[in-house]
Amino acid sequence: MALIVQKYGGTSVGTAERIKAVADKVAGFRNNGDDVVVVVSAMSGETNRLAELAHSIMERPIPREMDVLLSTGEQVTIALLSMALEKRGCSARSFTGGQVRILTDGTHTKARIRDIDSARIHAQIELGNVVVVAGFQGVDDNSNITTLGRGGSDTTAVALAAALEADECQIYTDVKGVYTTDPRVVKDAKLLNSVTFEEMLELASLGAKVLQIRAVEFAGKYKVPLRVLSSFEEGDGTLISLEEDTKMEDPAIAGVAFQRDEAKLTVSGVPDLPGIAYKVIGPVSESGIEVDVIVQNAAADGTNDITFTVKRGESDKAKEILDEVADSLGTAEVILDKKICKVSIVGVGMRSHAGIASRMFKALADEGINIQLITTSEIKISIVIEEKYLELAVRALHSAFDLGDPDYEKKPE
Amino acid sequence: MALIVQKYGGTSVGTAERIKAVADKVAGFRNNGDDVVVVVSAMSGETNRLAELAHSIMERPIPREMDVLLSTGEQVTIALLSMALEKRGCSARSFTGGQVRILTDGTHTKARIRDIDSARIHAQIELGNVVVVAGFQGVDDNSNITTLGRGGSDTTAVALAAALEADECQIYTDVKGVYTTDPRVVKDAKLLNSVTFEEMLELASLGAKVLQIRAVEFAGKYKVPLRVLSSFEEGDGTLISLEEDTKMEDPAIAGVAFQRDEAKLTVSGVPDLPGIAYKVIGPVSESGIEVDVIVQNAAADGTNDITFTVKRGESDKAKEILDEVADSLGTAEVILDKKICKVSIVGVGMRSHAGIASRMFKALADEGINIQLITTSEIKISIVIEEKYLELAVRALHSAFDLGDPDYEKKPE
Repeated sequence: MALIVQKYGGTSVGTAERIKAVADKVAGFRNNGDDVVVVVSAMSGETNRLAELAHSIMERPIPREMDVLLSTGEQVTIALLSMALEKRGCSARSFTGGQVRILTDGTHTKARIRDIDSARIHAQIELGNVVVVAGFQGVDDNSNITTLGRGGSDTTAVALAAALEADECQIYTDVKGVYTTDPRVVKDAKLLNSVTFEEMLELASLGAKVLQIRAVEFAGKYKVPLRVLSSFEEGDGTLISLEEDTKMEDPAIAGVAFQRDEAKLTVSGVPDLPGIAYKVIGPVSESGIEVDVIVQNAAADGTNDITFTVKRGESDKAKEILDEVADSLGTAEVILDKKICKVSIVGVGMRSHAGIASRMFKALADEGINIQLITTSEIKISIVIEEKYLELAVRALHSAFDLGDPDYEKKPE
Repeated sequence: MALIVQKYGGTSVGTAERIKAVADKVAGFRNNGDDVVVVVSAMSGETNRLAELAHSIMERPIPREMDVLLSTGEQVTIALLSMALEKRGCSARSFTGGQVRILTDGTHTKARIRDIDSARIHAQIELGNVVVVAGFQGVDDNSNITTLGRGGSDTTAVALAAALEADECQIYTDVKGVYTTDPRVVKDAKLLNSVTFEEMLELASLGAKVLQIRAVEFAGKYKVPLRVLSSFEEGDGTLISLEEDTKMEDPAIAGVAFQRDEAKLTVSGVPDLPGIAYKVIGPVSESGIEVDVIVQNAAADGTNDITFTVKRGESDKAKEILDEVADSLGTAEVILDKKICKVSIVGVGMRSHAGIASRMFKALADEGINIQLITTSEIKISIVIEEKYLELAVRALHSAFDLGDPDYEKKPE
């Protein structure tokens, strides 16, 4: 008998039929003897419908009232799911964020959870009830309704699991779990039984958008075992755990991540002086543009090249800012390249295994792919290459690190 | 400078455009220097949409969860109206029933208000804010969400007006106020400047469905001046007051009410014994059928006739029950007549004016209308007649008591 917190997203509860299917799943856990706390999102489409209503009233809706409005989406789902559970003989009680009570700061539309009063939920569990909680929402000190921002239901689930000291937090989604890479690019991409929190953070931020990154950070911080699995298909999904999976024969690499929509900016010939990197990057990030990879290299002539990547959609704006910076530095050219992509290999195992980088670079060399930039961290090596080589590079790396699913050939198409 | 509580129903806030129109109206009062508390219903259609969702999950939805579900309807409206007010430079704050806090008993789907904590609203008024409150909802002692049942937003408005000691409670609806009778039946029906609470209660229960009867009772009990007026047209509407309007020249009759969908049941030849009325009516009302008019008359042979009216839709069921009762009494016939209607004249003035009844009966006799039943109360005389005479009877009475609008002929068609 375990205490499990489950989270079902908007697609999983998108229709009355799907809500019934979720109720079947939850009832199955109850019948197994588990205690279950369920966190749900708004039915898919509902949040957009409400937001459109607000925008038809005013262009930039008041954040406080936006939270009052949007929080109704999850409230509808908790009521319907509780009914569906009761219908299955599974006694259930719904709670809004305010009722639980999930206390947040007062930053409307992107509040952060401060505290959860777990007593009310524990009392309901004692009574044998499934507790159904509205995700994404809370209340501030003055009982004003707040929301955690889009995708915040994952965070609600993890925070509840931490507060309740649950045995596991299960995030149900429309994929079966975390794969070694995107199965649309590499056909034999393998579902991972487990990854570490650190790996998940790198994989998530690099584009495998299975989980909200805030939820993963939260789970890591509070040591909540997190599992990603499918609402629609059977399977154990992927466990995101604190410990490395020592059973794996080759633990070096967990997966290959990639990012398509980046652009590269190089400021060349800047003077080799203290504070120069800040002078270049500072104005860009102050204008609200998110900077990803940053690489600086000294040239032979005593000047520096600073290269970094930004979202492709923001690259023209960044170029304008940098042109001004270059003028003020009285030097240097700014070069923008939009036809690039980033590919990374991620794995906690690379800490203790030498030769990972050279194996990576050899695989790319064998395919004739030129590497434009390299950056490394403890558990990740990222490269920037020409965009047209993306699929080729990902497949080459996936194969070079033996990540393929050995059962793939046996599967029916 | 007055403190006004205003209530806008579902039709008045049915679209974003109508919400903007309500905001214009409220802003007008603010600009006049009045303090305003606004109570709103769910946008028209929304409550039905949510109820259908619930019924697609289970035939008889759990009342507690139904309240969680339906209360979202008003929550959406308060957020949108507050935004619309802010857009007009009129600072506003929305509050759910739980936030206000409107404390109710725990009877889900038809809770009764016990107490209102007016401190939070007063504080907002002090800050110069329009306070927008979700109608129809509250919370019980354990912070469970409750609803007051359909039309409960009127009750919320009156209860708030009482708690805040407001100068007036204005109920905005889709009619201009209370008329002397239904303008669809009598073309020159006149808008009443004022009626008393007692008259309004009789008029409301007799079919002039302008106001929820519970709200009128509440307003009378707490001496809250109540005004019914149109959201869509200009005008002062009808004031429902504690005092008789002594300015009216002929205060005898306030209006003519009628009810179409009734049926008459007569149990004839029952023994003239104590407790016999209970034996006849008891089983009918215990089965949940609402009994309206009851008349008993002694026949010459020492037996009694008991006649009463019920909703036409429930009359066959009532007949079945009465057939069994008649069998057990070993007597008497049960006669069901579905082709009847009820017409009433209402007015506090009839207490002190003799001759009202005879004037009524003469008007009907002049039109050759046979009266089947007569009942009277202090401020009302009701008759049951054949259904086909309804319009004729209403027009005759409206005219006999000089209720017509003298300005009617001058109005454009």
